[in-house]
Amino acid sequence: MTDPSSYRLNHTMIRIKDPKVTLDFYQKTLGMTLIHQMENSQGKFTLYFLDYLDKGEEVPGTDESRRGFVFSRRGVLELTHNWGTETDPDFKGYHNGNKDPQGFGHIAILVDDLEAACKRFDELNVNFIKRVNEGRMHNIAFITDPDGYWIEVLARGFPSE
Amino acid sequence: MTDPSSYRLNHTMIRIKDPKVTLDFYQKTLGMTLIHQMENSQGKFTLYFLDYLDKGEEVPGTDESRRGFVFSRRGVLELTHNWGTETDPDFKGYHNGNKDPQGFGHIAILVDDLEAACKRFDELNVNFIKRVNEGRMHNIAFITDPDGYWIEVLARGFPSE
Repeated sequence: MTDPSSYRLNHTMIRIKDPKVTLDFYQKTLGMTLIHQMENSQGKFTLYFLDYLDKGEEVPGTDESRRGFVFSRRGVLELTHNWGTETDPDFKGYHNGNKDPQGFGHIAILVDDLEAACKRFDELNVNFIKRVNEGRMHNIAFITDPDGYWIEVLARGFPSE
Repeated sequence: MTDPSSYRLNHTMIRIKDPKVTLDFYQKTLGMTLIHQMENSQGKFTLYFLDYLDKGEEVPGTDESRRGFVFSRRGVLELTHNWGTETDPDFKGYHNGNKDPQGFGHIAILVDDLEAACKRFDELNVNFIKRVNEGRMHNIAFITDPDGYWIEVLARGFPSE
């Protein structure tokens, strides 16, 4: 009998329109590292796996070892790019799940200093759904990624207001 | 200047219809632990945070310490329950993002033994989208949670077929 407490939540997958724009956002703006990618020429899609590396961690050098590396982690972000959407004038964009029909809500990132992180996002012209000083909760912000998916931003440990 | 490489991917949020059914699924079938919950009576919703605990880890005893515990982790699952959906005959259910309009795709769990895990899911009458022996890839399966969200199941390290 397999023991389910040994399972782990490995990744969350969202579809993206343009890998150039989105990889730039998750790497430069959010500080993630692209640790693996898998291209499927038959299905005409590419999968990109990103995560935060801990100090001293390095992405392994071979495709096979990167595969083992990414699929033993927790909290990885998988981006699926169906080829052609980035230049298709008829492509209507992806649904972020927060308007009807609702479902998926957001991913959330922890930062060390919420105010400093939001100031930095502002300087980088990131789109805000909710700034820290808006709404009822002043200890979270919401930004969007290039496809419009919501990203909650909160300080590590989520201190009370 | 805040250093984005210190950020971490803390959680993924999905909306759920019935916490009784869904908590049962994520805890008993998928082996997760409910580590924190936050009720918002003004907004009429409850947030449930689940994760896998490592050996020796324990959920802290106080609400404040659980809060610090959950919001410093990576790979947490947040379930949002808007009160009343579980008994509302007009509630149409949540959208899993894989039919139009597409967006979010799935979460993925690592298991030690894919075949044994799938056999166990079968015994527990879990709904399969794709069994290991279906489709082109024989090293992954897809199941659904009670709301119909897709969950990829793969062996740790994702060995080639």
